Amino acid sequence: MRESGIFGENTKMGATQYVHGYSGREALRLNDQAETLSQMIHNDSVFAEGSLVLEAGCGVGAQTKIVATQNPASSFISVDLSQESVKEAEAAAREAGLTNVEFRQADIYNLPFENELFDGILVCFVLEHLSNPEQALDELKRVLKKGGLLMVIEGDHGSTFFYPDSELARKAINCQVQLQKQAGGNSNIGRELYPLLKSAGFADVVVSPRMVYADASRPQLVEGFIKNTFTAMIEGVGEKAVQQGIVDRHTFQKGITDLYRTAGPDGVFCYTFFKGFGTK
Amino acid sequence: MRESGIFGENTKMGATQYVHGYSGREALRLNDQAETLSQMIHNDSVFAEGSLVLEAGCGVGAQTKIVATQNPASSFISVDLSQESVKEAEAAAREAGLTNVEFRQADIYNLPFENELFDGILVCFVLEHLSNPEQALDELKRVLKKGGLLMVIEGDHGSTFFYPDSELARKAINCQVQLQKQAGGNSNIGRELYPLLKSAGFADVVVSPRMVYADASRPQLVEGFIKNTFTAMIEGVGEKAVQQGIVDRHTFQKGITDLYRTAGPDGVFCYTFFKGFGTK
Repeated sequence: MRESGIFGENTKMGATQYVHGYSGREALRLNDQAETLSQMIHNDSVFAEGSLVLEAGCGVGAQTKIVATQNPASSFISVDLSQESVKEAEAAAREAGLTNVEFRQADIYNLPFENELFDGILVCFVLEHLSNPEQALDELKRVLKKGGLLMVIEGDHGSTFFYPDSELARKAINCQVQLQKQAGGNSNIGRELYPLLKSAGFADVVVSPRMVYADASRPQLVEGFIKNTFTAMIEGVGEKAVQQGIVDRHTFQKGITDLYRTAGPDGVFCYTFFKGFGTK
Repeated sequence: MRESGIFGENTKMGATQYVHGYSGREALRLNDQAETLSQMIHNDSVFAEGSLVLEAGCGVGAQTKIVATQNPASSFISVDLSQESVKEAEAAAREAGLTNVEFRQADIYNLPFENELFDGILVCFVLEHLSNPEQALDELKRVLKKGGLLMVIEGDHGSTFFYPDSELARKAINCQVQLQKQAGGNSNIGRELYPLLKSAGFADVVVSPRMVYADASRPQLVEGFIKNTFTAMIEGVGEKAVQQGIVDRHTFQKGITDLYRTAGPDGVFCYTFFKGFGTK
């Protein structure tokens, strides 16, 4: 089972190494979060009727399912570097009854498509894992029609803040940031979408932040985001971070406890996703 | 001339000491920001027709003008601890032609009003300066009618992040956080609104974050917020921070340069205000 969903998708595509684990809990976490956050992130993932859309870095298809269902009059080609993920995505799409998606294995740096084939391109939680997001954007632009629409969605771990504040919790989060950096990625890429899309030469670039704000009045986000998505993700990199000497086990565990503490009745948690739009 | 506007208003009310300066540039900064951000913050500062509304901590009346104009069928009593600010607010309101506001000097911890007098209460950028926000909320609740609506708007300096990232810029921001702490305040109070309103016993508490996202595609926010509001505010505390040994002059200046750098063509700046609603 490969990962899917927010913070864990599309990770095979151009990433040297991937920081999250492959356990059953990880899979559950990734399912949880897709359901909790899809509306916030995909409410405007809309392409013109009849569009041919490339989804670059589909992973096991968690976002594919949402966006292809939402755009029944468009056709999708969803690609991922991992053949295994592509197979899983294909099976999931079949099971969901999707008829407007075709899957194939492909490298985001060297796409097997002619110039200007696609009317639209969707990239979700992919650039954060790449060592050269600029090159990937160049290649995506090559296969996009003139006037075509690119949508890019990324998280930003540096956007995280919470109550009660905790230095140990921030240290635990930093383990994930460090490991992703070692793997060639960038956990804080969300805030960079505007300069990235601009410097790749896209026009009409607009970036829209999507803040997840969770307190006890929003129990679904407390469960679905603070606990089952974000903290579970950080918890998942603990063993590796300890092994690599980024943190000691005790500090890490206390940080995780403090993160779960923000899901309490007086806790508050904030995290921001960024969605960038550009046209060729 | 006393301060008004975001990050600088209502500061005499219950605050032991105030961290911003009183220069002409400060006044300009505070005018700039009120115009740039008022819509984002006050779009839903709406009270039922015929309401009697207390504005607690009105400063020189920058928010008063916006909200009283927006609620022409309500009557406002706007109070501040500083008699001088109240006089300025009164003059400004007269000049603006406001006829639905009455001003008076008052202490937020000991309001000169009978129990349950007001239909609504508005508090903007006040709690951050108080050493005992809980006590202030108790007193505000006392003068609010059963079923009455409280609105609280606060910033959160710990919500700040930007591109290019810079440790020196974060150090410069931390000077403001430290000085405000020394003065008994809390620069990061925005994220705490939910637990504060809940523990004061308000019902139906809802907190809504309002993120200011500024990049070169939003030139008004780049000028009005990154440069003339936030960075100008931080710049304004530099001398005091250096005098108190919180930072050395060189480090501070470099931090300010890096903050202005985020207003460049490839820069990005994020800051979050929080607006809390509760009923008695």
